[in-house]
Order: sequence, then C-alpha cells, then structure tokens
Amino acid sequence: MNKAIENTPARVKKSVVLSGVVAGNTAICTVGRTGNDLHYRGYDILDMAGNCEFEEIAYLLVHEKLPTLAELTAYKEKLKGMREVPSGVKTVLETIPVTAHPMDVLRTGVSTLGTMLPEAENHSIEGARELADRLLACLGSMLLYWYHYSHHHRRIDLVADDDSIGGHFLHLLHGEPPPESWVRAMQTSLVLYAEHEFNASTFTARVIASTGSDFYSAITGAIGALRGPKHGGANEAAFDIQTRYDNPDDAEADILRRVANKEIIIGFGHPVYTLADPRNRVIREVARKLSMEAGDGKMFDIAARLETVMWNVKKMFPNLDWFSAVSYHTMGVPTGMFTPLFAIARTSGWAAHIIEQRVDNKIIRPSANYIGPEEREFIPIAARNSGAA
Amino acid sequence: MNKAIENTPARVKKSVVLSGVVAGNTAICTVGRTGNDLHYRGYDILDMAGNCEFEEIAYLLVHEKLPTLAELTAYKEKLKGMREVPSGVKTVLETIPVTAHPMDVLRTGVSTLGTMLPEAENHSIEGARELADRLLACLGSMLLYWYHYSHHHRRIDLVADDDSIGGHFLHLLHGEPPPESWVRAMQTSLVLYAEHEFNASTFTARVIASTGSDFYSAITGAIGALRGPKHGGANEAAFDIQTRYDNPDDAEADILRRVANKEIIIGFGHPVYTLADPRNRVIREVARKLSMEAGDGKMFDIAARLETVMWNVKKMFPNLDWFSAVSYHTMGVPTGMFTPLFAIARTSGWAAHIIEQRVDNKIIRPSANYIGPEEREFIPIAARNSGAA
Repeated sequence: MNKAIENTPARVKKSVVLSGVVAGNTAICTVGRTGNDLHYRGYDILDMAGNCEFEEIAYLLVHEKLPTLAELTAYKEKLKGMREVPSGVKTVLETIPVTAHPMDVLRTGVSTLGTMLPEAENHSIEGARELADRLLACLGSMLLYWYHYSHHHRRIDLVADDDSIGGHFLHLLHGEPPPESWVRAMQTSLVLYAEHEFNASTFTARVIASTGSDFYSAITGAIGALRGPKHGGANEAAFDIQTRYDNPDDAEADILRRVANKEIIIGFGHPVYTLADPRNRVIREVARKLSMEAGDGKMFDIAARLETVMWNVKKMFPNLDWFSAVSYHTMGVPTGMFTPLFAIARTSGWAAHIIEQRVDNKIIRPSANYIGPEEREFIPIAARNSGAA
Repeated sequence: MNKAIENTPARVKKSVVLSGVVAGNTAICTVGRTGNDLHYRGYDILDMAGNCEFEEIAYLLVHEKLPTLAELTAYKEKLKGMREVPSGVKTVLETIPVTAHPMDVLRTGVSTLGTMLPEAENHSIEGARELADRLLACLGSMLLYWYHYSHHHRRIDLVADDDSIGGHFLHLLHGEPPPESWVRAMQTSLVLYAEHEFNASTFTARVIASTGSDFYSAITGAIGALRGPKHGGANEAAFDIQTRYDNPDDAEADILRRVANKEIIIGFGHPVYTLADPRNRVIREVARKLSMEAGDGKMFDIAARLETVMWNVKKMFPNLDWFSAVSYHTMGVPTGMFTPLFAIARTSGWAAHIIEQRVDNKIIRPSANYIGPEEREFIPIAARNSGAA
C-alpha cells in the first residue's frame, strides 16, 4: 500500500446532505409549513384543485397571476397553436427504439427541440415564458408521436382541437376524444403535480439555469432528475404494488409482512409533510370516481385498504403518487407514462423557478466536505507498480 | 389590487445562495484549500499535469486508482474500441441543424444514446464505470460526426487508431492525425479540466443521480449546466476578448477603460481560488509553446499582456479558461467546441461524483426561504376580474 495513504487518518464524514437545508429564496411555493398544506404563489392548493383548470395554474406559475376568463381563453388558444413540432424532431422520435423509457424520450425530445428552435441569446424572461408555453403544449405531442410510431409505425397527427393539455394527451393516446370526466380528472391531477418548491428536479433546473445556460438545458436536466424512483418514478412503483394483489385482504396480509421486515413501501410518507400530503384526499376522490365510473373498483379498493393499513401500523400517509397511479391506470395510461405526465405538469413549476433563478442571477456553486486521502505522492507511470493505489 | 396581497408584509429575502456552502461529502477532489492548489483524490495537479496522459486521470477518477502501465495500455485499448456509436445515434446527429450550439449537440447525443444503449436497471457501480468509459470514448465522435455532416454532408468514419482521446478528437476534426505536440497539449488541457469538486455542472449531476436516476440523465444535465457562460461557456468568452484586438497595446488600453467602467472581464478570478488558479501556469506554458511552434504569437501576446494588466490594476489572476482559449484556437479548434472539450474532460469527474452520490444513497432535496405573498384569497375564474393578480 502507498505509504502516503497509509499514514493519512480517515477524515470525518459529516452529515451534510442538503435535505431540508435552505438553498435559496422563492416566491413561488410553500410546502407543509403547517405540516399538511401546499400553496402556489400564496394560494391554497385545496382551493384550486377541482376548481381550476391546469392551464389556469400554468398561467399562475409561468405568467405570475391567475388569468381572467378572457386571458385563460386566449392562453388556451395559444397553447393549442403550439402542439405541432418541427419535422426534424419527428425524425428523431422515429429513431428512438420502442424499448426506450418514456422519460428518456421526453428528455431527448426536449434536447432535440433545443437544437431546432433554440432560445434567443438574450435569454429574456418573456422568451423563457414563451418556451415554457411551447413545452407545456408539445411535451405530450412528442411522447405520443414516439409511442404510436415505435409501437405501430403510425405517424399520428399532433394537432387536435381538445380544449386542454390533459384532454389533448388522452386524445392522442387513445386516438379519440376522451370522456369529459377523464378530462376533469386529468385537470385535477396536473394541477396537483404542477409545483412543489425545491424538490430535486426543480432544484436541478435552478442549478442549470444559475450558470446562465438556456431554458431547454434546464428542463432537460429536470426531466432526468424526475425520472429517478426516489422522485417522480415513485408513481410507477406505486402501480406495481397496487396491481400485484388479487384483493384487499391479500394486499393487507402481504404489506403487514413487508412492514414487519422493515421494507420501505413506495407511495407513503414524504420528506417535507409531517401530518399528511394535502394532495392525497383530492387525488383519492378522483381515483374513486374514475373507478366507480369504470365499474372496476379492485385497484382502488386495494389502494384504499393499504392506505388504512399503513396508517394503522406505521402512522404513514399516502403521498400524491399513491392514488395517481389508480387514476392514470383507470384512464388507460400505460405505466411508463405516469412520470411523463408528472413532467408535463411540473414543467410549469420548473419554468417559474428557472425564471426566478435568472432574476436572482447568482451561480449555485456549493462546496464539499473532503473525506479523501491527503497529499499522496505521485509516482510516474514507469515507476508505478501494481500495488500503487 | 387584491386585498390579501396588499395586507401582506414583504418577507425578508435572505442571502442564502449556496456558493461556498458545504453540500455533501467527497473523496474525489479539493480546490484551493491553500488558496491556489488543486488535488484529484489526494494527488497534486501540478505533479500530474504535463506528466500524465488524460487516460491516466480518467482511470484515477472513474476507476479510483492510478493505473499501472499495463492497466493504462489495456484501458486505452478498451476506449479505442468504444469510439463507434449506434447507427440510430448517427441518424439523430444528421437531423440536428448546422446552426445548433455544439453543447446542445452533445446534450442531445448523450440523451439519445441513453435510449439506445440504456443503463441496466440495477444501476451497478461497474455499469456506471462502463458507461463513463463509453462516453469518454465517443463524445468527440458524436460531436465531430455532426460537425462534418452538418457542414459538409460528409459521414466521417469514427474509428481511428489514435492512441488518445485528445488525439482522436483532433484527428476527426482535421481529417488527419495531429502532430505529436498537439496531442501532448490536448492531454495536458484535458487533465486540467477533468475535475473540480462541487462546481455547478458536477453538482447538477449529483442532484440528478441522488433521485436514483440513470447515468445518462445525470451527464445530460451536467452538459446543460456546463454550457452556461458563468461556467464552461467562459472559455468561448475569453476567446472573444483575445481576438477583438490587433495588438497588446490596443488590448491594454481598452481593458483599462473597461475596468474603469466596472465591466467584468471573463476569464479572470475564481469563486474558490483566492491567490491563483494553479492550472493557469500549466496551460499558459502549453499556449506559449503552441503559439511559438505555429509562428504566430499575436493571440498569446495579447492574452499575456492582459494577464499582466489585470494583475496590476485589479490583482485578478487568469483562470484555466484564459489560456485554454489560446491553446485550442492555435490547434484549429472552432470556438464553439471549446466548451465541448471541457465537457469531454469533465465527464471523468462527473462520473466519479455520480458514483459517489449513488453510494451515498440520499436524495438531495433542499428547502427554500419563502419570500412571496401569504394566504391569498382564491377567486373562482367566473368572479375574477382583470385587477386580480
């Protein structure tokens, strides 16, 4: 062993994870300040979810105010006009294999769009808002273009007359206009997923924006972060749990065994909320109604039973991902598209944070606590033997 | 104005930028602990730069030890065998327009590769190392394939027998094997750019990796962060400064004027080093030798004069970007490829940090200091008038 290392005492590993550490200012969102509340720009999520279209919330986040009816109508018309993508983007989407993860498709689609419709060099706030609106309008287009092409070699038409982003998504997915109840469910779901303060993907977008990089780079990075199973990927894991049982009794018995074995049950608990995830009761009701309407309550019943079980034995509450899985599945959304739907919604929040970070205009460049070896002697390669570390 | 807002006192904006704040543990690198030193895994950069090939340093960072001669030879052979990319990636690169920013090409190339050669689901450390090696070997391939195709509709051969990553890059760029002195210059430059602790792009890669996302997502995000002019993009700005003057006297007079006007001069100073950037004297000598050999000292002389001027009037020292611009330009590298070369080198550092973050296994999810409005009254859209904010 190299002497220099041998003589180096191990340095102290500090507990310096950033979880919960204040990393910046924001006027966009508060999460769990009373243990179970969520506010977007000062408005309570429980006042908005169910009473708002997603486009209202996107307008609030990206354009910084709740729109009037006239403004909302104009905004939705504008978004409708941005559903098409350049033909070069379609060529790229046609090249991506059917085996690709839908989040990798979104990530690549956004990155490609950035080479074809790049952000203007001045990186103006108005320009960023324009790109936010464009991505909100066409993320679903890109994903579903790839989906139908890779699965069935069909080049679908991206322009459709649906009134909403959620409706457009379901229309392209299923090839027909969705029922009104599904559109409403999608609206509520997207509103709930739109924004959540300094979560990992939003923070990623802010770090990238802080270097003066472009809007597409920030969103591309955020999509990559959201993909992880400890973040957006959790709703896919929730689906896997809810669909592996035949009935609520089997589910309860198995989860009790897993809890006893100290397994972590995805879809429960949250690093910021202490009492409850306020979004749960909203999405739970959405999932219940959709299941009743579909005449198939099996998945909902299992999910609801596990909610009770987890509360009784662990005092853990479901987060937004838990009943989102039931809702999306009931509307025929493939599991791999759960997280992309989260990404579409969260693009509104990401955009707001990118803009806020640009205005802040400071680079995010933290430091590290060094725990490695000190002052090792460098041995040139000719003299280096296999023992050198 | 909405009464709820009117009555809300402005919250206090705290100075909570993360610059210099400890955000995690690392055993990979220390920057400027004595004011002007840099160590990779405990080895002093000044012992390595000029005495090491980049592949040795990549091995140290990715595979965690300095290789023996036999290990280095095998490693270089392995990298040589990874220069080709799937034909689908080439199709995508052919679709990207000639006007694209080369960093956007790299970002899209990596993201696309991630859809075609995805990381195994187990996200093993060995798998991550394999992907790091692959990207080190083929990032230049992707960039230069796009470059020749978009500019001259030529589909170049990506496989060439060059011994090094730097040599391979210059070979593909110029269409012929580079002179030995250029290969050495490239080796030194890439060694200097390889790693730099928790800089913004590396931190981006760590945040993305912390969610459990895949290796490609982390690198794609890091490329997007490096692209910014406050980070990797600085070497392009340095080039613009150095080439806008006819001679050192004109340069000095103009820079003195700009300094008097409080303009920021890109390429000088550093948030972490206080005394000097230790890499400067190494890359300065590389730039000087290349310029002499080329029989054209104009750009070097201007850069050297501005170094003296900035020290005399502002006590500011050049960072690595300053003479990198001279070096790359002298070797015929287009300005838009300066930051991509930085990205190729830094991929070794990014990979080391992604692996370290995975082992750490905690999500990076900071909090924010809220400075926005409190408890605003939500008015349903039908009752909302244009005055509502």
